[in-house]
Amino acid sequence: MCEAYNELEETFQRLYRFHHLAQLATWDVQTMMPPKGSNARGAAIAELKAVTHDLLTSEHTKKLLAVAAAEAKLTAAERANLREMKYRHLSERALPKDCVTRKAKLSAESSVTWAKARAENNFSLFAPYLKQAVANAREEARYRGAVFGTGLYESLFNMYESGMTLDSVDAIFQDIKVWLPPTLKRILASQKERAASMIPLHGPFPVEKQVPLCRYMAETWGFDFEGGRLDPSAHPFTGMTPEDTRITTNYSTATYTKAMFMTIHETGHSRYNVNRGPTDKRGQPVADARSLVIHESQSRLGEVAVARSAAFAEYATPALRRFLGDDPAFASVENVRQVHQHVEPGYIRLTADGVCYPLHILLRYEIERDLIEGRMEAEDVPRVWNEKMQQYLGLSTEGKDNVGCLQDMHWSTGTLGYFPTYTLGSMLAVQLMAAIKREIGENTVNDAIRTGQLKPILEKQKEKIWDHGCRYLTDELIRKATGEPLNPQYFKDYIERRYLRGED
Amino acid sequence: MCEAYNELEETFQRLYRFHHLAQLATWDVQTMMPPKGSNARGAAIAELKAVTHDLLTSEHTKKLLAVAAAEAKLTAAERANLREMKYRHLSERALPKDCVTRKAKLSAESSVTWAKARAENNFSLFAPYLKQAVANAREEARYRGAVFGTGLYESLFNMYESGMTLDSVDAIFQDIKVWLPPTLKRILASQKERAASMIPLHGPFPVEKQVPLCRYMAETWGFDFEGGRLDPSAHPFTGMTPEDTRITTNYSTATYTKAMFMTIHETGHSRYNVNRGPTDKRGQPVADARSLVIHESQSRLGEVAVARSAAFAEYATPALRRFLGDDPAFASVENVRQVHQHVEPGYIRLTADGVCYPLHILLRYEIERDLIEGRMEAEDVPRVWNEKMQQYLGLSTEGKDNVGCLQDMHWSTGTLGYFPTYTLGSMLAVQLMAAIKREIGENTVNDAIRTGQLKPILEKQKEKIWDHGCRYLTDELIRKATGEPLNPQYFKDYIERRYLRGED
Repeated sequence: MCEAYNELEETFQRLYRFHHLAQLATWDVQTMMPPKGSNARGAAIAELKAVTHDLLTSEHTKKLLAVAAAEAKLTAAERANLREMKYRHLSERALPKDCVTRKAKLSAESSVTWAKARAENNFSLFAPYLKQAVANAREEARYRGAVFGTGLYESLFNMYESGMTLDSVDAIFQDIKVWLPPTLKRILASQKERAASMIPLHGPFPVEKQVPLCRYMAETWGFDFEGGRLDPSAHPFTGMTPEDTRITTNYSTATYTKAMFMTIHETGHSRYNVNRGPTDKRGQPVADARSLVIHESQSRLGEVAVARSAAFAEYATPALRRFLGDDPAFASVENVRQVHQHVEPGYIRLTADGVCYPLHILLRYEIERDLIEGRMEAEDVPRVWNEKMQQYLGLSTEGKDNVGCLQDMHWSTGTLGYFPTYTLGSMLAVQLMAAIKREIGENTVNDAIRTGQLKPILEKQKEKIWDHGCRYLTDELIRKATGEPLNPQYFKDYIERRYLRGED
Repeated sequence: MCEAYNELEETFQRLYRFHHLAQLATWDVQTMMPPKGSNARGAAIAELKAVTHDLLTSEHTKKLLAVAAAEAKLTAAERANLREMKYRHLSERALPKDCVTRKAKLSAESSVTWAKARAENNFSLFAPYLKQAVANAREEARYRGAVFGTGLYESLFNMYESGMTLDSVDAIFQDIKVWLPPTLKRILASQKERAASMIPLHGPFPVEKQVPLCRYMAETWGFDFEGGRLDPSAHPFTGMTPEDTRITTNYSTATYTKAMFMTIHETGHSRYNVNRGPTDKRGQPVADARSLVIHESQSRLGEVAVARSAAFAEYATPALRRFLGDDPAFASVENVRQVHQHVEPGYIRLTADGVCYPLHILLRYEIERDLIEGRMEAEDVPRVWNEKMQQYLGLSTEGKDNVGCLQDMHWSTGTLGYFPTYTLGSMLAVQLMAAIKREIGENTVNDAIRTGQLKPILEKQKEKIWDHGCRYLTDELIRKATGEPLNPQYFKDYIERRYLRGED
């Protein structure tokens, strides 16, 4: 009866298997591959992409999609699956092949030059590559815009978050721009008053002691080491598939907080990956993660709403003593809380605290949007970066592009439109946590955190987010999960409560 | 001009990239994959195999092969390349798809049952699977025999060693059967006389001390850690590609010899992989390794002819003290030599010494050949195993199938015809070493080994074997490298010299 649809499910099952191999090949690059393996690996991944591209965009697949769309007997999950299939098909077809090849070629060359430019603190080396990356991205935005009827920057943003409009996103960033910089100043002032009483970390913290701590924390969130791994990598990420989920972290002997919070963050991503439903459709697009915003909300819920809370300091303190020994900073739960909630503006996004982080993203969002929409050019980046850094975080990056506009690798690989998902995900994390507290009670949540028995929280994440996979678009999923659209007020409240009033 | 040939080179370049991914997926299974990842991994590898199969066996490829064969302008290397392409094409086409699928399905189920049967020392659990594996292998032998005009067992043997006839191989095994068992008895008697003076290993040897020792030994053979890895795995192997070669070993705290010699063995495989030529044809069949016999000769040359020699004990002793501390057995170079050359019949092939190893292989060769050619059945295996074990090694496996016919996993995965390559490779290793000594002088070779400056030996391996890739068939390659066909006399001489006269 639904022959066309069934054949599509088979096609996407095959694509899922190719995706498995691509994920493995990429994970290995970041964790295991010796440096001289990179050219052959690049060629192998490209070959796999070509196979995937041909299968996904073939005329036959196009025809099947049209036939299946007319099929009345599909279930709701199958309809959603078909919608996602069609989106992937269109998205993959949107770009002419020469545009894809040009982008891939530039990305490979560009990331090498970016690394050199950063090491030498020399933006001018990277500038021509950035200029070309922007030109490519503008071209890509035009092609995608023509297919999906979206604006230029929106077309890129939608590659990572297909379920939200840019209007709603922009309103949120305009809002952040107004209230967060002055709030940061108030937080720093109030923190200064309390600072004298905080015992800072003494350290050092040997990596071999941090590894079991990180594994313990991952297990606290239910990470199953029979179906996953934890490895070190330069840039922490979550990779592989639901059947075999792999997270990474990055160790510093100066502070355990970096590796521990990164592990908790990635565990959040992996728990979503493992449990995303509907499970009887595993391998189908409808059982995939909804989007990067939803993904980030799951990792930030664990990292920010749970692991940096006061209640979590109660759970963490004895564990820290057990795994890391008696550092002076572990003298009291209250001191550990202060260490975990310390706010300090810095140059580097990756290690920024929960208050400063959205300002790093705001800066990048504004710059990349202006680049794509033609209001600025690649050569303006260092100047504008410095201006916004001063305005939002009170720091100058003049003469320090290595810790300024050269710090992230995203643009070097032609990835523009990705950054906003970080902040939107953080906001959603807080909003989701508020909904969970409303439903099962603030005390239940706090007890769960205090004791490290996170089951009640994880079950709610499963019910609200994981189970649905791609059944709904992002806006609808957020509304079903929290009773309202993405609402920045929750984030504001949480910032003030935790960082000004010390109530969380 | 050579359009068809050029298109074939492109096709095989693509196959090489898919092979890269298949290698990575398999390496990961053995080293990194968490247990729950196995089903999804199996499906992904099968999907990749399907793509490879379709590309390799397509009517289009068949036509190109025919057109290119008529092309007069090809170089000698290109002609050899075309020969290897055609062999792969025919070999992949030889089996009907249902036969391949049946074999793959059985292999997956069978290896699980084999592991259980071994753990429970219960052959009857495994018997029905072995029976089916033999039936499948017989069928496969018939199909391949029809394509290549080979005998039943020969058809299977040729999957691993396509350049040798079974007649020549069989003569060698008949010969071993006659002279090696009595020689072993003589060796054990003469060793007994000297045994009282040997200081045995005291240990234990912590793994973290063995790892740098193994890395040091791999580097002695020129292993480049910028283009390769060394990891632990249950069954040591060499994986991945020339661009990124990965070896594994297996540690026991009771003796360093296991991990160290396995590492040296696998380093031999990897050095061949990295250097096999012609290098300007990398990715083409002509630049692949010649065969498993040639492969094994390169690993055994390092492990047996070099690393277990008296000269190598001079190099190893200070290194052992440096990495592992002052074990009583490291008291003298002579004692280390005795430890490395100790002969002791045991049940397990994998850890057998250089004298007993060929007897383990002889036993398997005779059994699997009789199975395939219908002279015995799966249920006879434990009985015949026990008889031959008593005859060749003086050990009974009655009631001990777990260390008898259940010890190896090859047959559980339907791999029959592979075992002989181990012994043939060992023999060739010794013959090659004799040729190298003739050419550059025994003193030069011994000095190289004594000092760990192996360059003169490695250069000869490169010139004689590595550089040629698949340009010649095995018999021709052996003749070019050593001046004669595979000649068991070298192996006999080496056994008597080292193990009876103590001259090596």
